[in-house]
Amino acid sequence: MKTVIIGSGSWGTALAQVLQDNHHDVIIYGIEESQVRDINENHQNSVFFEGVQLNPELKATTDIEVVKEADIVLLAVPTFAIESICQKIDFLLTKKVIVINVAKGFHPETNERMSEVIRRSISSKHLSSVVSLIGPSHAEEVVIRLLTSIDSVSQNLEDAKTVQELFSNHYLRIYTGNDEIGSELGVAIKNVMAIASGIIAGLGYQDNTRAALITRGLQEMIRFGTYFGGKYQTYIGLTGVGDLIVTCTSVHSRNFEAGYKIGKENDVTDFFRTNKKTVEGVRTAKIVHKIAKENNIEMPICEEVYQILYEGKEPKTCANDLMLRELKQEF
Amino acid sequence: MKTVIIGSGSWGTALAQVLQDNHHDVIIYGIEESQVRDINENHQNSVFFEGVQLNPELKATTDIEVVKEADIVLLAVPTFAIESICQKIDFLLTKKVIVINVAKGFHPETNERMSEVIRRSISSKHLSSVVSLIGPSHAEEVVIRLLTSIDSVSQNLEDAKTVQELFSNHYLRIYTGNDEIGSELGVAIKNVMAIASGIIAGLGYQDNTRAALITRGLQEMIRFGTYFGGKYQTYIGLTGVGDLIVTCTSVHSRNFEAGYKIGKENDVTDFFRTNKKTVEGVRTAKIVHKIAKENNIEMPICEEVYQILYEGKEPKTCANDLMLRELKQEF
Repeated sequence: MKTVIIGSGSWGTALAQVLQDNHHDVIIYGIEESQVRDINENHQNSVFFEGVQLNPELKATTDIEVVKEADIVLLAVPTFAIESICQKIDFLLTKKVIVINVAKGFHPETNERMSEVIRRSISSKHLSSVVSLIGPSHAEEVVIRLLTSIDSVSQNLEDAKTVQELFSNHYLRIYTGNDEIGSELGVAIKNVMAIASGIIAGLGYQDNTRAALITRGLQEMIRFGTYFGGKYQTYIGLTGVGDLIVTCTSVHSRNFEAGYKIGKENDVTDFFRTNKKTVEGVRTAKIVHKIAKENNIEMPICEEVYQILYEGKEPKTCANDLMLRELKQEF
Repeated sequence: MKTVIIGSGSWGTALAQVLQDNHHDVIIYGIEESQVRDINENHQNSVFFEGVQLNPELKATTDIEVVKEADIVLLAVPTFAIESICQKIDFLLTKKVIVINVAKGFHPETNERMSEVIRRSISSKHLSSVVSLIGPSHAEEVVIRLLTSIDSVSQNLEDAKTVQELFSNHYLRIYTGNDEIGSELGVAIKNVMAIASGIIAGLGYQDNTRAALITRGLQEMIRFGTYFGGKYQTYIGLTGVGDLIVTCTSVHSRNFEAGYKIGKENDVTDFFRTNKKTVEGVRTAKIVHKIAKENNIEMPICEEVYQILYEGKEPKTCANDLMLRELKQEF
């Protein structure tokens, strides 16, 4: 089976190396010629992983035609690019493939989940199923082969198992799941919580506050996810609490980093003026706010993040407002 | 209402200050004369909180007779000392009191939960009810008034509410709960997970591994807790995942610190030779091993910690053994 990885960023590179380590047929497609050359000639992807030597057999290309040979296509691009890349490869595909998605968030206009976008954008004659390969995983750690556990989630459990077997090895442990809705909503919303976690850290709060935030944040994720048919259980798993913890506590998280800057300055202005990275949680906060409002789902932490990002509310005031809500039973 | 705090350690001092900040009648009873004097004269408890100025109105005493005036007695002593201190104060009490417990673990011989020990050791004519004041809370942060959320848990919800109202303020947010079993088992077992988290950090693993460990650890806590009648829901709350996160990720945790040393040295010998602190998880690991075995409850992480602490198994081997278990569905 041949796997084509679309995207020569950090996660695409790290997952391609996993398959190479497992002696599978894999190639990375990237649009940045310098990155592709860096991988092929220097066995590095130094823009993302400074000083890391990749598996020397790992190969990359700038020729999108390579997807024609694929049995599996893994999309390692930001959420906003998923639809257009799907349309592009659908035009090239000649057989049914498994499409693996690793992006976490919603379609920026339609608010669809990633699996929904992919199913809509690739014709059924080219699509066996969509598998989400998601969970608590910073690429920076997978690329140096540190123990990591993630989920292979699909409506098609057979395809999820195929992906599980393909990627599993002594440093990457993969569990299967079939709660597509629960898992995708979990990993999307946790980026908003990571911004919140960064904000409170930037404001000077420490571990107690963060633990309370993560706990209450998990409950919001459950409320939102189960409303749309996700399973409660999923949220105590890798795509729920697992991914939430890693994003809310790790220095590698862009969402945490964005929140930290906003909290430190107690203001959002400078973040929007200077940020050039893809911070999925910023978009997700707006979409969650909209969906929660339309469906009357109580999401106090997400709402405060939305207020900070889009309504000019002061971060310090938000933290206090969350704290001083009416005393009550935990459940 | 007068509250007497038994124990002039870090948590006793921090919680006494909360009540003093709230302008309630409170006094600390301690056996260390130097600490009591430090509080009364210097408004510090410098053994535990170097450089922190306490509320100057906070008072302490070495006279245990002070419990005679108490309406509420808060026990801030290690698990192994709970029974003897209860017997001591039962002898002095003249009226019914609420007993608040903050210790996390089991009785070292009988394996009872703390609330069970207290109910057995204080005669019913002196005991209104036992309330556990537990959750993600390092004393070092509460004493400098950083936002913290914890649970007030009791079979008697009225008493839980009394405690909630007494302690709540702008930096300490308290929720009530009545799942005594679920909450107490949660906060006890999480100390074993914190040792495991320390071990993997000491071995050089990073955020991905830790997030996976915490996620799987939470599932073990649920398995154990629900077996004995705890509610599933409790484990997504402050005394479940909340306390688990704070202990597994914080530099303030003695359990994490112990695990870190063991992981770093890839051996347990030096830890047992040199440790002089109360590390509750070390005792708890033995008790959980025993109870899980007797009741046939699958606790793979707790079991590996037990093997490292008491059977001489190499930490590095344990991490690999956990990772290479048979591939399966997450749930």
